[in-house]
Amino acid sequence: MPTLPSSSPPLPDIAQVLKRVRIEPAAPGKAGAKGASFRLRDHDCAWVPEARGKSRRGGSGLASDDLVALDKDEIKDRAKDVLRRNVEELAAAQELLWASNDHAVLVVFQAMDAAGKDGTIKHVTSGLNPAGCEVTSFKAPTPEELDHTFLWRVHKRVPERGKIGIFNRSHYEDVLIVRVHPELLGNSKLAIDGRGETLWAQRYEDINAFERHLARNGTVILKFFLNVSKEEQRKRLLARLNDPEKNWKFNASDLDTRDKWDDYMRAYERAIAATSTPWAPWHIIPADHKWVMRAMVASIITHTIRSLDLRFPKLTLEQQRGLAAARKRLERE
Amino acid sequence: MPTLPSSSPPLPDIAQVLKRVRIEPAAPGKAGAKGASFRLRDHDCAWVPEARGKSRRGGSGLASDDLVALDKDEIKDRAKDVLRRNVEELAAAQELLWASNDHAVLVVFQAMDAAGKDGTIKHVTSGLNPAGCEVTSFKAPTPEELDHTFLWRVHKRVPERGKIGIFNRSHYEDVLIVRVHPELLGNSKLAIDGRGETLWAQRYEDINAFERHLARNGTVILKFFLNVSKEEQRKRLLARLNDPEKNWKFNASDLDTRDKWDDYMRAYERAIAATSTPWAPWHIIPADHKWVMRAMVASIITHTIRSLDLRFPKLTLEQQRGLAAARKRLERE
Repeated sequence: MPTLPSSSPPLPDIAQVLKRVRIEPAAPGKAGAKGASFRLRDHDCAWVPEARGKSRRGGSGLASDDLVALDKDEIKDRAKDVLRRNVEELAAAQELLWASNDHAVLVVFQAMDAAGKDGTIKHVTSGLNPAGCEVTSFKAPTPEELDHTFLWRVHKRVPERGKIGIFNRSHYEDVLIVRVHPELLGNSKLAIDGRGETLWAQRYEDINAFERHLARNGTVILKFFLNVSKEEQRKRLLARLNDPEKNWKFNASDLDTRDKWDDYMRAYERAIAATSTPWAPWHIIPADHKWVMRAMVASIITHTIRSLDLRFPKLTLEQQRGLAAARKRLERE
Repeated sequence: MPTLPSSSPPLPDIAQVLKRVRIEPAAPGKAGAKGASFRLRDHDCAWVPEARGKSRRGGSGLASDDLVALDKDEIKDRAKDVLRRNVEELAAAQELLWASNDHAVLVVFQAMDAAGKDGTIKHVTSGLNPAGCEVTSFKAPTPEELDHTFLWRVHKRVPERGKIGIFNRSHYEDVLIVRVHPELLGNSKLAIDGRGETLWAQRYEDINAFERHLARNGTVILKFFLNVSKEEQRKRLLARLNDPEKNWKFNASDLDTRDKWDDYMRAYERAIAATSTPWAPWHIIPADHKWVMRAMVASIITHTIRSLDLRFPKLTLEQQRGLAAARKRLERE
């Protein structure tokens, strides 16, 4: 049994993490249904993976039991370390993604306000080469965007082969905020009279087909819901009000959204249940501890790219001869 | 029985035309199959609708029998007249489309070389306001386009609400020329090993889902295959070689494509059978007589927009009061 060197805490066992946070696709025919089996309340917003490790015998790198005894600061340190190592590995994975050039990676973030989308994106991408990574923040749609279908603006911004594309909010807004506020549909002047529930089922179906199309053509898709508790959101919004350096982050409309918390949770549950697919799974990431959230997201992205088993392009014999000839010419100069 | 004034020949009966040229969707589950029932050879490239009218009793405006006796010039004059009237009506329909602003119209043209895509688009759109009409010609994909999925560049160019968008070639190239020349798949560096036939079935499925998404969000889609015969193409290509003013249109690669005529016909048959859907039907337009082809295309587009039953926006009482107030202010000046 290998012992864990104390100087280098183990990466969390990704299989264990995925088992808890990845949402299994609904049974066929159930997509678009009310997502009967998936409930956000079943997902702990403050879950700390290391602290829950139960197996006494590490084996696959799962944290050892004594982590259960760690206090909050120690868990934070541990999570920071996991994040740091994953960020390093992600940078290496990005270079390989670019060189092998037959896949793209699309990472979608959705969450309630103050759940930590911006901070997570900032930390996870901190080691990446910006030339190979594009972050797109989707705001309220422009008049031009409203004159197209809701997938138009996102399709324009999907990453090209070799790149990592990150969506801060996404096409899911059109089945989340728009579902909670159906009056927004009027902005797109859709002839939707009488479609009722069908409209949302159609949107889920269109999203699944769109993402499947991307996946079939080499795009790996990961979707993250950063699951913050209502109480933790209250604390973070208060911090934005009380800390002058955070004042700029506060938006009065966040409180209106908070008032409809339960409606949003229901919209998220339905959307996630209907659109967690084998080719574009959703992950429910506990968001009450920022460092744990960030480490977990980084681990899942890194693990996913690593499991693509990418390789640097291998040159053909002819190409190798070309290199040899070029080498000779340079050496002769 | 109304008699037809000789000065104004009737518009062809659109229901009759559609019955002959519109391809019925394959039975569910058959999409992606080999299109067993649809054969291009069953579609006459030189069909002249007026000349084939069989009913002795006109009724719905179908041309009367004596048209059968018309010679080629007379049929051409008749078709030109139909086109002229449809172009006028199309211009009116376009204005209504723009004002009512809840639909877009997407018209897709595919054909073999020299079938008449450019000329048909030019003549059909001749009366339109360019502000409300966008023609996109899709050439060989750029490196940037090849780094995205094949639907990316077309999705970017779909018409916004209120507009007519015309595609001169389209996403169908990716199941036509690419199917005849699968080596082109290498350009997009797809990991397609072992997918074989499945790849094409997946592309048909993705196209259908994409077009359905557009249709659900207010885009009316019409697809035209301009069906020129191999002999007529030979004549037109020879004309390009022999007429100095047409020389610029000749492209030596057209002959290579012509060499693979049968392969292309098979690719068209499969694609059309798999992607003629209730929301985006294909029309097989006889293309050996240019004026007939143009008149028929214009008729179908005009008929389709007319059948949307669009209306100029009706103002609310409040808006009407606003207008009344504005009127008063101007009158008082």
